[in-house]
Amino acid sequence: MAILHWGMVGGGDGAFIGDVHRMAARLDGGYQLVAGCFSSNFERTKASAKLLGVETDRAYSDFNAMAEVESQREDGIQVVSIVTPNFLHYDNVKAFLDRGIAVICEKPLTVSLLQAQELQALAKERNTFLAVTYNYVENPMVKVARELVKNGELGELLMVDAYYLQDWLAADIENSDQKQAAWRTDPAKAGRAGCLGDIAIHAYNLVSYLIGYSASSVNARLATFVAGRRVDDHADIQLGYSDNILQGRILASQVMTGHENDLGFRLTGREATIEWRQEDPNVLWFKPMGAPAQRLTRNGAGYPERLNALCRIPAGHPEGYLEAFANVYKHIRLALSEKDFLYYPNVDQAVKDMGFVEACLQSHDQGNWCEVECIIQE
Amino acid sequence: MAILHWGMVGGGDGAFIGDVHRMAARLDGGYQLVAGCFSSNFERTKASAKLLGVETDRAYSDFNAMAEVESQREDGIQVVSIVTPNFLHYDNVKAFLDRGIAVICEKPLTVSLLQAQELQALAKERNTFLAVTYNYVENPMVKVARELVKNGELGELLMVDAYYLQDWLAADIENSDQKQAAWRTDPAKAGRAGCLGDIAIHAYNLVSYLIGYSASSVNARLATFVAGRRVDDHADIQLGYSDNILQGRILASQVMTGHENDLGFRLTGREATIEWRQEDPNVLWFKPMGAPAQRLTRNGAGYPERLNALCRIPAGHPEGYLEAFANVYKHIRLALSEKDFLYYPNVDQAVKDMGFVEACLQSHDQGNWCEVECIIQE
Amino acid sequence: MAILHWGMVGGGDGAFIGDVHRMAARLDGGYQLVAGCFSSNFERTKASAKLLGVETDRAYSDFNAMAEVESQREDGIQVVSIVTPNFLHYDNVKAFLDRGIAVICEKPLTVSLLQAQELQALAKERNTFLAVTYNYVENPMVKVARELVKNGELGELLMVDAYYLQDWLAADIENSDQKQAAWRTDPAKAGRAGCLGDIAIHAYNLVSYLIGYSASSVNARLATFVAGRRVDDHADIQLGYSDNILQGRILASQVMTGHENDLGFRLTGREATIEWRQEDPNVLWFKPMGAPAQRLTRNGAGYPERLNALCRIPAGHPEGYLEAFANVYKHIRLALSEKDFLYYPNVDQAVKDMGFVEACLQSHDQGNWCEVECIIQE
Amino acid sequence: MAILHWGMVGGGDGAFIGDVHRMAARLDGGYQLVAGCFSSNFERTKASAKLLGVETDRAYSDFNAMAEVESQREDGIQVVSIVTPNFLHYDNVKAFLDRGIAVICEKPLTVSLLQAQELQALAKERNTFLAVTYNYVENPMVKVARELVKNGELGELLMVDAYYLQDWLAADIENSDQKQAAWRTDPAKAGRAGCLGDIAIHAYNLVSYLIGYSASSVNARLATFVAGRRVDDHADIQLGYSDNILQGRILASQVMTGHENDLGFRLTGREATIEWRQEDPNVLWFKPMGAPAQRLTRNGAGYPERLNALCRIPAGHPEGYLEAFANVYKHIRLALSEKDFLYYPNVDQAVKDMGFVEACLQSHDQGNWCEVECIIQE
Repeated sequence: MAILHWGMVGGGDGAFIGDVHRMAARLDGGYQLVAGCFSSNFERTKASAKLLGVETDRAYSDFNAMAEVESQREDGIQVVSIVTPNFLHYDNVKAFLDRGIAVICEKPLTVSLLQAQELQALAKERNTFLAVTYNYVENPMVKVARELVKNGELGELLMVDAYYLQDWLAADIENSDQKQAAWRTDPAKAGRAGCLGDIAIHAYNLVSYLIGYSASSVNARLATFVAGRRVDDHADIQLGYSDNILQGRILASQVMTGHENDLGFRLTGREATIEWRQEDPNVLWFKPMGAPAQRLTRNGAGYPERLNALCRIPAGHPEGYLEAFANVYKHIRLALSEKDFLYYPNVDQAVKDMGFVEACLQSHDQGNWCEVECIIQE
Repeated sequence: MAILHWGMVGGGDGAFIGDVHRMAARLDGGYQLVAGCFSSNFERTKASAKLLGVETDRAYSDFNAMAEVESQREDGIQVVSIVTPNFLHYDNVKAFLDRGIAVICEKPLTVSLLQAQELQALAKERNTFLAVTYNYVENPMVKVARELVKNGELGELLMVDAYYLQDWLAADIENSDQKQAAWRTDPAKAGRAGCLGDIAIHAYNLVSYLIGYSASSVNARLATFVAGRRVDDHADIQLGYSDNILQGRILASQVMTGHENDLGFRLTGREATIEWRQEDPNVLWFKPMGAPAQRLTRNGAGYPERLNALCRIPAGHPEGYLEAFANVYKHIRLALSEKDFLYYPNVDQAVKDMGFVEACLQSHDQGNWCEVECIIQE
Repeated sequence: MAILHWGMVGGGDGAFIGDVHRMAARLDGGYQLVAGCFSSNFERTKASAKLLGVETDRAYSDFNAMAEVESQREDGIQVVSIVTPNFLHYDNVKAFLDRGIAVICEKPLTVSLLQAQELQALAKERNTFLAVTYNYVENPMVKVARELVKNGELGELLMVDAYYLQDWLAADIENSDQKQAAWRTDPAKAGRAGCLGDIAIHAYNLVSYLIGYSASSVNARLATFVAGRRVDDHADIQLGYSDNILQGRILASQVMTGHENDLGFRLTGREATIEWRQEDPNVLWFKPMGAPAQRLTRNGAGYPERLNALCRIPAGHPEGYLEAFANVYKHIRLALSEKDFLYYPNVDQAVKDMGFVEACLQSHDQGNWCEVECIIQE
Repeated sequence: MAILHWGMVGGGDGAFIGDVHRMAARLDGGYQLVAGCFSSNFERTKASAKLLGVETDRAYSDFNAMAEVESQREDGIQVVSIVTPNFLHYDNVKAFLDRGIAVICEKPLTVSLLQAQELQALAKERNTFLAVTYNYVENPMVKVARELVKNGELGELLMVDAYYLQDWLAADIENSDQKQAAWRTDPAKAGRAGCLGDIAIHAYNLVSYLIGYSASSVNARLATFVAGRRVDDHADIQLGYSDNILQGRILASQVMTGHENDLGFRLTGREATIEWRQEDPNVLWFKPMGAPAQRLTRNGAGYPERLNALCRIPAGHPEGYLEAFANVYKHIRLALSEKDFLYYPNVDQAVKDMGFVEACLQSHDQGNWCEVECIIQE
């Protein structure tokens, strides 16, 4: 296995999502971190570089310089991960795409649909790879769910009900020196969408992946339950689809007391319902009409052989969040080596997800249903 | 314990809900069935009477005659249960209230808000008891939930999310000689509201009981997923409350493949979330901020002593649907003996529930939020 | 339905198990309580009679008198339930069998195998019905389990693992005026076997019912974890079977902190495992080799039609402990009306269960395996 | 973080447990694989080396040569992992300990107690590190469990009940070209103990870790359910402890249809019971007397801060088998760097575990309880 030369922007040592990307890449085994601009503070970048085994001369004070220098080096990075706060994504991504370096960007891709569309166009123009890390769709049992839908085992789809419930923002911790909370609730850094852009977007992406297409309209009721907070922390969304049959719902909340990272879905068709929860990711419930419910397990009895490569270990040996994230890195690696940029979640879906966010904001403002722009039917 | 003389309209032998009422009353032990008009077909009524141990001369061909004769007898019935299809409730209830006989009516009380309000007024005018059998609120753990809310253990309420999911109408069985399905999907018999009036109303009643007040507005998206069906079989409803803080959702469906009788709720406040499912009724989850989730059990450790009378047997000996229904009958019996007509669910709540149904129908027609009429704040 | 004239010995108002028998009989609807000797204290018996609607002249100060008088009355009781402490069962049962009155006795049948065998012989000699209320085997999903075993769906049986865990005797509440605890831990009243005779016997009966035969040997390790207690409160038992293949285990405990009434089993054959828990009685897990586990539900999809009569209400409407107990009364009623005394659990199995108890006591004393006497292969 | 130079014996590319060790080490990030003797077949070793990025000259045809050469190199391996079949462990471990190279050995340490004791003595004599990879004790919630026990929150311990249930050997797949099954059921390669030495030993190790000491006696009933199999595939074991209070049970089976990798325990004290299952590793149940059961979660509310370092990601982001295994590697790395060889599970416990295995074999042969040798009280 050839090892990719890999860089990172953001994710100084100790940052949650930066660590996650590094652990995922290590678990995959196909990436070597050789360059980084880990912080806006160069001293911190250098300290992180040392801890992470990055050579001093490849610790950069500036992401533009990093893009420029690395693109010139013979042994320069082949791919870069962008794990900065949302508002920086656009510039970060652009800098590397412009130099033909493949980009892995944290979600949301940008803070506006327009920016996302620009990056989409740029990636196309440069024929350069741009992926967005919607990690949850890389859980093996989500892939099984997608297969069941594609194979028609659910019959005509009627209802999809997704949720993403957390409670870490139930109090105003953004005012108590919690850095992560601070930037995520600052519209200047996270964008106008709070809970909506942070986690509702994950649920929407998951739903779109499962059914294979995007919503045509949304009706969003956003709330800011914590006094003084500057972005929404709760989103109750209805989804409409162009087939005029399927109906959807998403509930996303960061103030839902007693919930840790409770993402999941129930997808119902005329023939069967399937259910999955991220906190119990090795299980997928399959509930067919007229027969007992079945508890499908990752790599277990009845698990489809063609999906074996998604699993690292046997049934009953639980895989979790990092393993799914490592699948993201694995599939990106394969996409790069095979020059097959149709990898999912690719930039096209990420743009649609931004379309969803903007439509929700508009719907909330108007107090009514709103069409989702930029629907590109697959 | 004095045994109440009890009559029944509808519920011929073999009818689901008639049997349930009889089993509940027997389990309570305070009712003796002595009169009935079990069917519109007098032969069937007489056959049912024989099977049920009702004397021949108290098997009636007509409910008006039954009300008249029984009200004249010295040993006449003290209370009657109405378990006919919805469209008959109004006339049935009126006949007995007019003669001063206490009435227990199946939900929904009527097929329109106006009718419900008339019965409400009539009961008041005659000072006669009228209860509606919202059985689910009589589960002990629902009562515990209500106590937790009242005692402020959840803090300010933010979100209530209720659901009632079934799949028995996933196919058009109303055309296959399924009598129950036939009348419940016939607007002439069940009213215009299908799933909405049959089960969404249960979820709404449960929510209203838990929080102690009714919604001020609704946004309802109804669906009829089965072709040719004449009423809705699926309802996705958003709820608004006059405090402008609490938000609510109800999903009710009779086409939700793989779901049997899946009623439940999650109620979130700033301090804690509680969750309950009717299919696992002896358990209530209590999820406080900053502490592990607790699994409260009926009559188990920490169960409040003042609620002991709701339980018939010790913790770990599961009670179910019939035991909760028997609590309905027990509490009605106590309400009657104590002439305390404030029993819940009384007619006032039942009228509000009809207000909810009508508001949902109107909201669906208009495609937008609709105020709920006749809010009577408790 | 003809209503049986029914009497009761023991079970004064407020007694746990007496109430349970009465609720079960009421739920069934085929019994009328007309006579009783509810207490050794005649005043209490008379008070109970009044509360229970039993005529004063049929409230007896003495069970022998009751048996004598009732057997002479034209409208005398047809069947009597014995719900006294264990040490009284023998005399109680004998009194009624001697007069040809059918008997329903609480488990354990007696406090010794010898006594049990005498009652077995007496019932046979008089051709009189004698049932013992092992209520748990009357859960519908236990019947489904038995069907699966009989139909060979598990393949050759390898391992049965049963448990019955409670914590109500974790402290020495017998010294704190808890009457139930007092007699159940008093060898003079409960017999020498404590936890063993009270609940391990239920688990053993359940296991024997499931597989269709009894153990041939036992290895029992009993413990008395609470200081000063005079009977065992914990039993760890291995079971051997004459086929030399099937192995069994039973763990029963009344000091298992955090467990309410946790009876259940896992039964494994070469083709499938089944699992059931009394606290979640509407579910049976079926785990076949090479296919996903299935969650079978009472009256749900795939529930065998021939077992419909065991259910009172539809799937998703949970039944519980009392419904299963009411099935005991229903089946006894049918057995009596059809003069088919092969009803299970009949006296033959109850005698085997006493053989199990005695073998366990002997095994414990000897510190080794012990043969179970009186195996009567079915 | 200094990166350890690391070698491996066994675990050719594709081998289950070799891959696991490599993924665990990668996830930890502190190991670089630089040498290996991956197979008894040198060609396969060389192919694996290439795939794994090991330089050709450090791919060894013989583990003795590897030990010799590496111990001479300035940049030689500092630690080696032994992942060969059990019967090779003794020679493998000895070769490296003899040259002062730290050893990480798969369990069981050897195929006999005597061998294990020899290695224990050798490690001591050479003051060289020897760890055995009992990975399950490195799950964060197992550590929480151990803390609860140590802090006395369970009160005096009464009963520990552990199980390890699989079904992968339910058929005689050792005769169908399944290499793993073949050696694991071959007494010449796996040792005389089959299921006992493969998985019962894990359950025993876990139990010993939790309570902090080893059993003094065992009563083992082994079975070989699959015809023709040469080792046990099922073990039902009772444990005795020298305090004469605590009782234990272990059920281990590789023929338990419908079970994947179902390891878990219930540990009961006078004050509380705790329960954990490896297949749901992020949850620990805490069931105190007189209060509702609590669902403790990894890194969740109430999780002890001093155990934070065991977690890689926040609550609700499930960790699994590999994360626990990576904790093994992390703790070994820390033990090595701090020259603190008291790391658990160290060789002393591994020797006790072999004492358990031998005592079980002897108990089974004798059909009775057997003392466990070599108890070294902590």
